[in-house]
Amino acid sequence: MTTTAAVIGGSGYIGGELVRLLLGHPEIDLTTVTSARLAGRPVDTAHPNLRGRTRLTFTDPAALSGADVLFVAAPHTETMALVPRLLDRGKVLLDLSGDFRLRDPLVYREHYGVEHAAPDLLESFTPGIPELYRDRLTGADRISVPGCMATAAILAVHPLAADGLIDGEVAVDARTGSSGSGARGGPGDAHAERSGAMRVFAPLRHRHQAEITQATGHPCRMTATGVEAVRGVQVLCRARLRDGAGPREVRDAYRRAYAAEPFVRIVAQRRGTFRLPDPKILAGSNFCDVGPVVDRGDGWVTAVGALDNLVKGGAGNAVQCLNIRMGWPEEFGLGFTGLHPV
Amino acid sequence: MTTTAAVIGGSGYIGGELVRLLLGHPEIDLTTVTSARLAGRPVDTAHPNLRGRTRLTFTDPAALSGADVLFVAAPHTETMALVPRLLDRGKVLLDLSGDFRLRDPLVYREHYGVEHAAPDLLESFTPGIPELYRDRLTGADRISVPGCMATAAILAVHPLAADGLIDGEVAVDARTGSSGSGARGGPGDAHAERSGAMRVFAPLRHRHQAEITQATGHPCRMTATGVEAVRGVQVLCRARLRDGAGPREVRDAYRRAYAAEPFVRIVAQRRGTFRLPDPKILAGSNFCDVGPVVDRGDGWVTAVGALDNLVKGGAGNAVQCLNIRMGWPEEFGLGFTGLHPV
Amino acid sequence: MTTTAAVIGGSGYIGGELVRLLLGHPEIDLTTVTSARLAGRPVDTAHPNLRGRTRLTFTDPAALSGADVLFVAAPHTETMALVPRLLDRGKVLLDLSGDFRLRDPLVYREHYGVEHAAPDLLESFTPGIPELYRDRLTGADRISVPGCMATAAILAVHPLAADGLIDGEVAVDARTGSSGSGARGGPGDAHAERSGAMRVFAPLRHRHQAEITQATGHPCRMTATGVEAVRGVQVLCRARLRDGAGPREVRDAYRRAYAAEPFVRIVAQRRGTFRLPDPKILAGSNFCDVGPVVDRGDGWVTAVGALDNLVKGGAGNAVQCLNIRMGWPEEFGLGFTGLHPV
Amino acid sequence: MTTTAAVIGGSGYIGGELVRLLLGHPEIDLTTVTSARLAGRPVDTAHPNLRGRTRLTFTDPAALSGADVLFVAAPHTETMALVPRLLDRGKVLLDLSGDFRLRDPLVYREHYGVEHAAPDLLESFTPGIPELYRDRLTGADRISVPGCMATAAILAVHPLAADGLIDGEVAVDARTGSSGSGARGGPGDAHAERSGAMRVFAPLRHRHQAEITQATGHPCRMTATGVEAVRGVQVLCRARLRDGAGPREVRDAYRRAYAAEPFVRIVAQRRGTFRLPDPKILAGSNFCDVGPVVDRGDGWVTAVGALDNLVKGGAGNAVQCLNIRMGWPEEFGLGFTGLHPV
Repeated sequence: MTTTAAVIGGSGYIGGELVRLLLGHPEIDLTTVTSARLAGRPVDTAHPNLRGRTRLTFTDPAALSGADVLFVAAPHTETMALVPRLLDRGKVLLDLSGDFRLRDPLVYREHYGVEHAAPDLLESFTPGIPELYRDRLTGADRISVPGCMATAAILAVHPLAADGLIDGEVAVDARTGSSGSGARGGPGDAHAERSGAMRVFAPLRHRHQAEITQATGHPCRMTATGVEAVRGVQVLCRARLRDGAGPREVRDAYRRAYAAEPFVRIVAQRRGTFRLPDPKILAGSNFCDVGPVVDRGDGWVTAVGALDNLVKGGAGNAVQCLNIRMGWPEEFGLGFTGLHPV
Repeated sequence: MTTTAAVIGGSGYIGGELVRLLLGHPEIDLTTVTSARLAGRPVDTAHPNLRGRTRLTFTDPAALSGADVLFVAAPHTETMALVPRLLDRGKVLLDLSGDFRLRDPLVYREHYGVEHAAPDLLESFTPGIPELYRDRLTGADRISVPGCMATAAILAVHPLAADGLIDGEVAVDARTGSSGSGARGGPGDAHAERSGAMRVFAPLRHRHQAEITQATGHPCRMTATGVEAVRGVQVLCRARLRDGAGPREVRDAYRRAYAAEPFVRIVAQRRGTFRLPDPKILAGSNFCDVGPVVDRGDGWVTAVGALDNLVKGGAGNAVQCLNIRMGWPEEFGLGFTGLHPV
Repeated sequence: MTTTAAVIGGSGYIGGELVRLLLGHPEIDLTTVTSARLAGRPVDTAHPNLRGRTRLTFTDPAALSGADVLFVAAPHTETMALVPRLLDRGKVLLDLSGDFRLRDPLVYREHYGVEHAAPDLLESFTPGIPELYRDRLTGADRISVPGCMATAAILAVHPLAADGLIDGEVAVDARTGSSGSGARGGPGDAHAERSGAMRVFAPLRHRHQAEITQATGHPCRMTATGVEAVRGVQVLCRARLRDGAGPREVRDAYRRAYAAEPFVRIVAQRRGTFRLPDPKILAGSNFCDVGPVVDRGDGWVTAVGALDNLVKGGAGNAVQCLNIRMGWPEEFGLGFTGLHPV
Repeated sequence: MTTTAAVIGGSGYIGGELVRLLLGHPEIDLTTVTSARLAGRPVDTAHPNLRGRTRLTFTDPAALSGADVLFVAAPHTETMALVPRLLDRGKVLLDLSGDFRLRDPLVYREHYGVEHAAPDLLESFTPGIPELYRDRLTGADRISVPGCMATAAILAVHPLAADGLIDGEVAVDARTGSSGSGARGGPGDAHAERSGAMRVFAPLRHRHQAEITQATGHPCRMTATGVEAVRGVQVLCRARLRDGAGPREVRDAYRRAYAAEPFVRIVAQRRGTFRLPDPKILAGSNFCDVGPVVDRGDGWVTAVGALDNLVKGGAGNAVQCLNIRMGWPEEFGLGFTGLHPV
C-alpha cells in the first residue's frame, strides 16, 4: 500500500525538486501539488523537465484535502502562519522553510526580523539532519529541514565538533548558485546582472549561522557570496584544532562519523581536479561531499563541504528524512548519482 | 569648443553604453542623461562601471532643456511618439530604437504589430550604417541606428549583395546574449532560467529581417536563439552564389568593401581557435568581424558576422555615425579593442 | 540471471556515462571497464561523480576477457581496427564511434578522411536509432549508435521525411557544448578560450550530415557552432514543405511518429520560457525533445531538436538500444528526468 | 620623443594585455614582443582581439636587441635566471612574475619550492604597488609587480593596517577566474572540467599570502578557490578590529588612503546589486574596488577587494607603475572603465 504525499507550494524550485523526487519514489503516491498562482495548470508548466512524467495539475491551496505526508515548501515568515492550519491535514509534515529550524524564538527574531507566530510549535519539530538525528527522525511527525548552506556546513564540521577536536568559533565562507534566490527573483537576479558575478550578499553574517551553532555547539561567523552557478553550495569552514588533534585524529573522526552514511562522501585527496568537494558534480544528487584539510603543524583545519542546494540542501534531504521516518530504505527515490562533466 | 550631448532614456543597457562612450569622447560634453524612474539619482546607480568617472545625475525627461546632439534610447513603439517632441531640442538626433529603421510604415506594422505614429518622419531618417551610407551620414540630422542582429547580418552580407554575387534569399541564423533583453527583463530572463540555455525565441522570422532586406535588397529568413552570453551577437548567413562566383570573387568583394573600414575586420582563416568571427573577443569594442566561407564547388556561401550588441550593435555605432556627421575622426571615443581572454 | 557488460574505452566522457547508466541498470552486471592510460586505477578517478557507487578499477584493454555485451567507446578511425578483434569477445557489440555509422565506405572516406579498414563489416551493423529501427534492433548483435548532432536532427526531421511532407534539402544549424570535444581536448578547449564563445567550427558542412541523409533520405547541409554549455546539443532544421502540407499535417506527423515513444517528447508550445526544445533541461536524461514550427503560409518548416549529447546522443541511446535488443523494458537504467533549473 | 618598450614573453595572457595597453599608450612605442614558440608569427595570432591594431610579429627572445623599458612576463622560477641577462638591455625593467616579489630568499624558497637563483637582486626591486610605494616608484629602475590576489588583498587591507585599526592575523578567502592559470593550462583547465566549478585549489595557504604579510605587516592565512569566470579576482579579508576602532574610523581610513587614488574605488553601499566590489564590472579596467564592512559591535571587519587579474592584477598595474616612474600622467594607457553588463 502506497503512502500519499502532497507538496504545499509546488511552483518554486524546491517544490519542483520535491515533485521530481516523489514521482520516482517507489513507496509514494504524489496526489497533490498546490500553487495559488498556477492552480489548474499542469505541473510541468512550472517544471518543464517533468514533461511526459506526470499529468498532475496544480491545486489551489484552499482546496487541499490532505495526504499521509505533507511537504511544505512555502516562503520563510509565511510558513509559520500556514503550518498550524496544516497539522491536521497529514500525519507527517516536513517543512523546508526557515521557520521551524531554530528552537529559540528570540534567535529566530534576530535572524528573520519578525516575531515568531507559532513559538509553541518550535520544540515539536525534529531537525531534518539524518547524520546527526537519525534516531529521533524514526519517530518524528514534524521535521524541519535545514537551510542549504547550513546543511553543508553542519555536515562538514560535525565530525570535528562531535569528537571535540576544535576550539572556539567556526568561520564559514559560503558560495552559492542563483537557484538559491528562488523562482521569483528580483532585478539583481537577471541573467545579465548575475552572470559571472561574485556577489558578496552577506559580508558579515548570515542567518544560517544560527543553525550551524545550534547543531555543532560552536559559535559561527558566516559570509556568503553568489557565484556563477545555478545549483550548488560550497562552504569553507575553518576552525582551530584542539591541542593534540592532528591529521590522524581528524581523518578518524570523519571516517567514524560517515563510514556508514549513504549520502555523505569524504573527498580529501592529494591530487586530481576534483580532490576536494565541488558542487559541480553534485547537481541532482543527494550527496553532500565533505573534505577536511589540516595544515602542517599550525593547528588549523579547513573543512570543505559541497551539495546541491535544491537536493541535499532541500528536497532530497527531506525525502531522506521521510525514508527514515517511514522505515524505508534510505536511498528510495534518491538514486541519482550526479553527472560529470556538466 | 565642445559639442553638448544628451542621452534620452539613459538607465537601460544601451543608455549606459552611450554614457560610457560619450564620457570618453574628446569632442563631446555629455550634459544630460534622462530617466523617469531614476531622476535625481547618480548615473552610476544604474551603471556601476562608471563609478568615479562621472558625477552626473539622472534628469527627469520632462526637464530636458536640449543639447546639440540627442541620443534616444527609449523602447520600441514608445519612441515614435517621443521623437516629434524632441526634434526642436537638438540639432542632431540619433535614434536607437526600432521605430525609424524601416522606411515603409506597412512593413513596420507587420513587424511591430502597431500602426506607426509618425509615418511622415520615416523618410527623414538616414540609416546609421556607416559602411553603406557614409556619404549620406555626413549631412544627416536624423539618424536611425539599426538593430544589433541586423547590423551583424547586413555587414556580413553586404559585399556579396553589393557585388551581385548571390541569388535569392539569405537565411540568417542569429544567436544572442542576454543583454539584448534589456535591463528590465521578465521571469524568463532570470539567471537560473537563462543560464546555459539555448532558447529559440524566433524559430521562423524576426523583425530584424526586414532591415536586412531593406539594406541588401535580398529577401531574408531569420531565426534567433538566445545562448549563454551577456553581450554578443553572431549571425550565420547563407546564400546561393551566382554562377561564376567563387572563392576569389568573394574574397575580393570583402576586401573591396572593407579594406578602408575602421570598424569592420575580415576574419576568415584556415585554422586557429578564433578563425571565424566570435563575439567573445568583441565585448566593449566597436568592431564588427565578418568572415565568408565558400564551399568547394557546390555554390553556397556562409558569411559569419559577430559584434557586441550594445556597442557596434547600438551605442558605438551611433557614436561612429555622429563622428561622421560632425566630420570628426571616425574612431573618436571608440578606441577600445576588446579583450582576450574574457 | 544478469547479463555481463564491458565498456571498452571507459575513461572518456561517453565511457563515463556508460558506466553511470550501466551501474544503475537492473539487468546488467558491469564487470569490466578498460583504459590503457588508467589501467589499475579506480574508475572514479576519471569519473568523480561515481565515488561511492562503484569499486571497479580500469582494466588494461589487452586483458579483456569478454562479456555478454560490449560497449565500444573508442575514438573515430581507431575503432574500425579494434572492432574485428572484439567480435568474439561478446555476444552483442554496440559501437559509439563514427566508424560503423555510414553504410557506404566511400562516404566514410569523404567525411573521415581515411579509407575504411573494415568495409565488409559495415553492412552488419544496425543503426542505433530506436525510433526508426526498433524492429531491426530486436535481432541486432552489432549496433552502431549515431552521432549526437545526427540523432537530434534525425529525430527532429524524421516525421516530416517519413510522411513525405518536405521537399529537397534539409538545412541543419547545430549548436553544441564543450563535452563533445571529449575529455582530452586541445588548447582551444581551455576554459578561458571556450567560455562564452560562439565558435563556428563547421561553417559549411559536418560529417554528421551524411548520417542525416542516410536516415531521412534528404540531402543535408549542416553547420555547427560551439556555444557556452558543457552538455547539450540543439539543432534547427529547416526544410521546404510540400504543397498541401501545413500545420495540421505536420502536427499529425509528429504525433503519429512519437506518441508511443518513451524518449521523444514533442515540445512546441505557443508561449513559455521552454516552449521549444532546449538542452538546458535535458542534462543527464535520455530524452530527445523535438518541436516543429510552421510559418504562416510561406511553406517552410523549422524543426528544433535538443538532447544531452552524452546520453541520448551517446551512452543513453546505446543502453536504450540494448534494452530493445534484449527484450527488456526500454526505460531500464534510463529513468532520470533531467533537472530544472540547472 | 617616445619611449621604446619590449614585452618579454608576450604570448601568454599577461603578455597579451601588456601589448594591448602599450599599443594604446600615448608615450610608448612598442617595438618588440618576444615568444620562443611563436617567433616570426603575427602577434595577433595569440591575441585575436588585437587584429587590425598591430602588425607586430613575435621576436625570438635570443634576438632581443633592447628597449628603454622591458616588461618581463615569463613564468615563475624561470624569470629569476632570465632577469640578470636582461638588465643591460633596458633602462627600466618591470617583472610580472613572482620571482622578485619577496625580499627574503628563504620565504621565496618556502613558497616556490626552489632556491632563489639571484638573491642579490631581490633588494634592488621596488614593489609595484603605487598606492603604497608611489614615492619609491618615481626613482625605481627595477619594479616587481605583485600577484593578482595579493594586490587585491593588500589594497583591501592596507588602510586598516596603515592606520593600526586591526590586530593579529588577516584571513583571506580568494576566488579567481580561469585566466589565472595562464594560456597553457592542464587537463583540469579544460572548459568541460572547469565550467561551473568551485575548485578549492589552496585550502590552507597560498603563496600570495607572503606578499600580503610583507606589505601589511600582518600574518595572513589565505585560501583560494577557482570559480566560474575567465577574468576576475575577489578577496574577502577578515580581521579583528582594535579596541576603539569602529565604523567611523574604518571609513575615515579608507577615505584618507584612497581619496586621491586614480585606480582604487571605495565601494561599500547599503544596497544595490553591486554594493560591494565585484570583478564582473572590472574586466579590462585598471580599477581595484575595495569595500570595508564592519559588524555591529562585535569587533570584526570584512574588507572586500576585486580586480581584473590581468590588468590591475598584472599588466595594467605594471603600466601604472611605469607611468609613475616616468613622470607621466598615471592614467596614460589605462582609460578603459569596464563594462556593465558583461
